[in-house]
Amino acid sequence: MEISLDLIVRYAETDQMGIVHHSVYPIYFEAARVELMKAMGFPYNEMEMKGFYLPVIDLGVTYKNSAKFGDTVTVKAKINPFQGVRVRIDYEIMNGSSLLATGHTVHVFTGTDNRPCRPFTDFVDRIK
Amino acid sequence: MEISLDLIVRYAETDQMGIVHHSVYPIYFEAARVELMKAMGFPYNEMEMKGFYLPVIDLGVTYKNSAKFGDTVTVKAKINPFQGVRVRIDYEIMNGSSLLATGHTVHVFTGTDNRPCRPFTDFVDRIK
Amino acid sequence: MEISLDLIVRYAETDQMGIVHHSVYPIYFEAARVELMKAMGFPYNEMEMKGFYLPVIDLGVTYKNSAKFGDTVTVKAKINPFQGVRVRIDYEIMNGSSLLATGHTVHVFTGTDNRPCRPFTDFVDRIK
Amino acid sequence: MEISLDLIVRYAETDQMGIVHHSVYPIYFEAARVELMKAMGFPYNEMEMKGFYLPVIDLGVTYKNSAKFGDTVTVKAKINPFQGVRVRIDYEIMNGSSLLATGHTVHVFTGTDNRPCRPFTDFVDRIK
Repeated sequence: MEISLDLIVRYAETDQMGIVHHSVYPIYFEAARVELMKAMGFPYNEMEMKGFYLPVIDLGVTYKNSAKFGDTVTVKAKINPFQGVRVRIDYEIMNGSSLLATGHTVHVFTGTDNRPCRPFTDFVDRIK
Repeated sequence: MEISLDLIVRYAETDQMGIVHHSVYPIYFEAARVELMKAMGFPYNEMEMKGFYLPVIDLGVTYKNSAKFGDTVTVKAKINPFQGVRVRIDYEIMNGSSLLATGHTVHVFTGTDNRPCRPFTDFVDRIK
Repeated sequence: MEISLDLIVRYAETDQMGIVHHSVYPIYFEAARVELMKAMGFPYNEMEMKGFYLPVIDLGVTYKNSAKFGDTVTVKAKINPFQGVRVRIDYEIMNGSSLLATGHTVHVFTGTDNRPCRPFTDFVDRIK
Repeated sequence: MEISLDLIVRYAETDQMGIVHHSVYPIYFEAARVELMKAMGFPYNEMEMKGFYLPVIDLGVTYKNSAKFGDTVTVKAKINPFQGVRVRIDYEIMNGSSLLATGHTVHVFTGTDNRPCRPFTDFVDRIK
């Protein structure tokens, strides 16, 4: 499953190099991931109300071109089949046809005790 | 009661004007407020574990000079006597002898139900 | 002149109280202000390329209800007639019919030397 | 060369899971990197005044344990020998003896034209 989300770069997201600060890209990834989970039928809000969390345990970003204030960027997020209890999501950030960055996050499901737990069967089924 | 806290301006806190973004000052205020509460004997952590929160209900900042990346800024926080159930804290941000900003926050105590509640007697006594 | 902008609250914008951190509201104001300037025919990008900046010299926010992760909030921004060289913008943040916050920012135009300067005649005329 | 920097976790850095948001770790890395560059005799400020920038082209973070509000965390940063024109820095974030995260950033030097350029000879020599 794959979705894409358009975001407008905020002034506050720039730094004194005149480009989007590199720590903002994981936030863009997250915004797309939230939409991805919603599109899959598992909105974060509902999951958390049921006592499930999906913390990030690994993050990678490769920066290829800078995003600038006012740009409309497109964030693509694609979920991969489970590797054990881990789920990996891959991302691309585009500005039109220009690739700004690629990246990934790896997640585990945890319960309210903060310990890893099995994902919902529904969720596993949906990814397959 | 009054405290002061030194902070080093982070690169991530700058924007493309080459100065600290204005939304960062409330975060500096908060860092000083946390130290103030600790110095008063009411650390946030302990208060929250007891089920009390201290959300901001009003914020004001007047910006006089820019903070820049790498500056060491001094944030002064001073608590005022209660006005009913509200507590007001005043702030100054200095870079050496240069005044960068003044500001204030107003807070109410709330319980876990998110509703305003009376502050601890100890707390009220301490401020007097 | 008045505009309104819809934003979806990001996970990264929440804090451990489970609500949007108060320092995020000025960023929402700014996002609406950017759209307001664009709608007035003076996009930030173009202004800055011409060597004009519009830093914030005063900020006020009154918090009435919390924004939560996933909420779609509407930010209204309204520009006021000039007071000398200063321009004031007023804001409201709504979640449906519920008022979350009100606020304002005050700005001066500055040149590349970081000193206040007269706004463009066009700009003054547009606000009248 | 290696340095370590102590930071106090800010309230604003937490999210509604009650832990430090994962996008904050790159900012902690950066704060340590700034101190590392200073300790090496190449402060960012001076480099940028000379027209050199050191943007991030790759970032990786592995999250092992959560940082919490009020924690004092220690960020270790260690610079590696050059790989061509790229410089890689490795990081560890500790809370006392508990490892919270490991990570790395990869950088290239760029000039004011935003294009990669050779690092200063001094800099290369210092790393050896």
